[in-house]
Amino acid sequence: MWNENNLTQMLKINYPIIQAGMAGGVTTPELVAAVSNAGGLGTLGAGYMSPEKMSQAIVEIKKQTTKPFAVNVFIPEYPEVTDEELLNANQSLRAFREELQLTTKPTLNQDDLLFERQMEVILNHEVPVCSFTFGVPSKERLHVLKEKKIITIGTATTVNEAVLNEESGVDMIVAQGSEAGGHRGTFHGAFEASMIGTMSLIPQVVDQVSIPVIAAGGIMDGRGIFASLVLGAQAAQLGTAFVTSLESGAKEQHKEAILNTTEDQTVMTSVFSGKPARGIQNQFSKKMKEHEGTLPGYPILNALTQDIRKEAAKRNRPELMSLWCGQNPRLSQKQSATEWMVETIAQIERVSNG
Amino acid sequence: MWNENNLTQMLKINYPIIQAGMAGGVTTPELVAAVSNAGGLGTLGAGYMSPEKMSQAIVEIKKQTTKPFAVNVFIPEYPEVTDEELLNANQSLRAFREELQLTTKPTLNQDDLLFERQMEVILNHEVPVCSFTFGVPSKERLHVLKEKKIITIGTATTVNEAVLNEESGVDMIVAQGSEAGGHRGTFHGAFEASMIGTMSLIPQVVDQVSIPVIAAGGIMDGRGIFASLVLGAQAAQLGTAFVTSLESGAKEQHKEAILNTTEDQTVMTSVFSGKPARGIQNQFSKKMKEHEGTLPGYPILNALTQDIRKEAAKRNRPELMSLWCGQNPRLSQKQSATEWMVETIAQIERVSNG
Repeated sequence: MWNENNLTQMLKINYPIIQAGMAGGVTTPELVAAVSNAGGLGTLGAGYMSPEKMSQAIVEIKKQTTKPFAVNVFIPEYPEVTDEELLNANQSLRAFREELQLTTKPTLNQDDLLFERQMEVILNHEVPVCSFTFGVPSKERLHVLKEKKIITIGTATTVNEAVLNEESGVDMIVAQGSEAGGHRGTFHGAFEASMIGTMSLIPQVVDQVSIPVIAAGGIMDGRGIFASLVLGAQAAQLGTAFVTSLESGAKEQHKEAILNTTEDQTVMTSVFSGKPARGIQNQFSKKMKEHEGTLPGYPILNALTQDIRKEAAKRNRPELMSLWCGQNPRLSQKQSATEWMVETIAQIERVSNG
Repeated sequence: MWNENNLTQMLKINYPIIQAGMAGGVTTPELVAAVSNAGGLGTLGAGYMSPEKMSQAIVEIKKQTTKPFAVNVFIPEYPEVTDEELLNANQSLRAFREELQLTTKPTLNQDDLLFERQMEVILNHEVPVCSFTFGVPSKERLHVLKEKKIITIGTATTVNEAVLNEESGVDMIVAQGSEAGGHRGTFHGAFEASMIGTMSLIPQVVDQVSIPVIAAGGIMDGRGIFASLVLGAQAAQLGTAFVTSLESGAKEQHKEAILNTTEDQTVMTSVFSGKPARGIQNQFSKKMKEHEGTLPGYPILNALTQDIRKEAAKRNRPELMSLWCGQNPRLSQKQSATEWMVETIAQIERVSNG
């Protein structure tokens, strides 16, 4: 049976389908619970969340499902930034702020203890599964999670990154191909060198590690999920496919943009957050491109552009929002995640029977 | 059965496995015949070939197999180039010529009638299958081929390009994902926008055209071939997998480079030919990168660098050769194409039975 393997047993799920832990409000408790209740693994994207909001969301998810679910967090980074760099960045962003009539300056409230406090929440709530992006957790941290029987998932964009994850002791690895929407999980080596297509990345990673591999990047339906299993992955993780679901908390302009775009309209850009991410090309990414090399890194730039993205959504100006999207938007659908799961599982049954 | 569909019937082949028509001497008659004799479709990469050499190769292939085979040709381009551009390009290349002690200047013998004469060879020899790269053949030309019962295959890198191919009247389409080694087939729209991963490209193309689709890009074994069929393709086309075969005419340094590289070592570069292509990063592509924007287009630059690439191979200097390679080199093998076909077909049998 296509849906039974080590991974589904370890995660205690019926189908090897994982909803990606997209940050920024996309993964509502309703979405996470819908995917888990349908037999997959829903994921709360807690990367940017305060411990308080995270706790509330986890409590809400547990009210809506008794099935396993995951919480995704970001390995923290603390880049240096000079006053001059900040001044330059704000200068580059000024025209957008003026256009949106934003009068207050963005504040940089970097919370150096956020990650520690997020991990406490995960331990306290005994979240079934914890996934990590932007780095490898320490062996000590993984040990603590293991003692609480929390399953851990790392993220890799190259074979080397997958090996580093396995060495750290995570239970399984997401291998993120270049088709993926949103942020690259790259943490070791140059970002450009890590843009490996899913079709190439999965078999190479599977051959080099012994823990289960989860395919991600450009997968949008039962054909892609079953193809991932054929390539040697034990599950597929999908992001863009769930952004347009009814349960998703994505802004309506974001959903509409995905539903109406084509495969040749996305670009890799770091002008929104300081870290390369794939989204639908728009006025903001086009105009800011000339500054791309001189802008501060993640998460500084992310904080600097936050008010612009929020205000743009409020004023219905998608051309100034971050419209994260993978390379397979023609397969996007506006429907409930529950219905999508049922139809997709039926599609895999058909495809896997030839 | 995984190996029976419209495409295998139309091409009269036993297995939906196509060896890509790589130009530059890789596709020897031995390689083409080995793949066709094993039940796949071998392809002579005739893009750069004189009609005389093409005729000889076709005669030789016919001596070695009675099975169908294909010949690949390039839709011609005639870019303008000024004397100043040529001077600048030769200036950029001078250090490499001196290093290799090349004393003669490269000559630009553009043959405006090459394509016409290549097509005459294909018609005269009644080649079973003709595939096209870098554009769409005219309806008139396809009509003439059809009258001779020659099956035609176009190449697309986006859904739009696939639709243009179908409208022109080709019988089937190769959809080339961004993982592919060698030249991009892109002919409509910006090259950057056409870098779509195979996992995303195939289902989107399949959903938008009604003729058979052939998956290409990052496919190196039975897992990739069967995954392509799952995604909706009716065959897979493999290039890099056959470059390292014993029958391949690729330079030994090229074969060794592929066998010893990893997925994160290839780059897209247009400094060898004037057209973007994926190869293993080396001294030539690194040093020439600064000139990339100002160099003349394809095929001018290709002619200007030809003596450098040839002399580098002679002197065993792979750092100055074009080492075309896809993003899945860890799966490359040094073995006969016949043996590879037998093992790969057995692997697909295993994979397709779950």
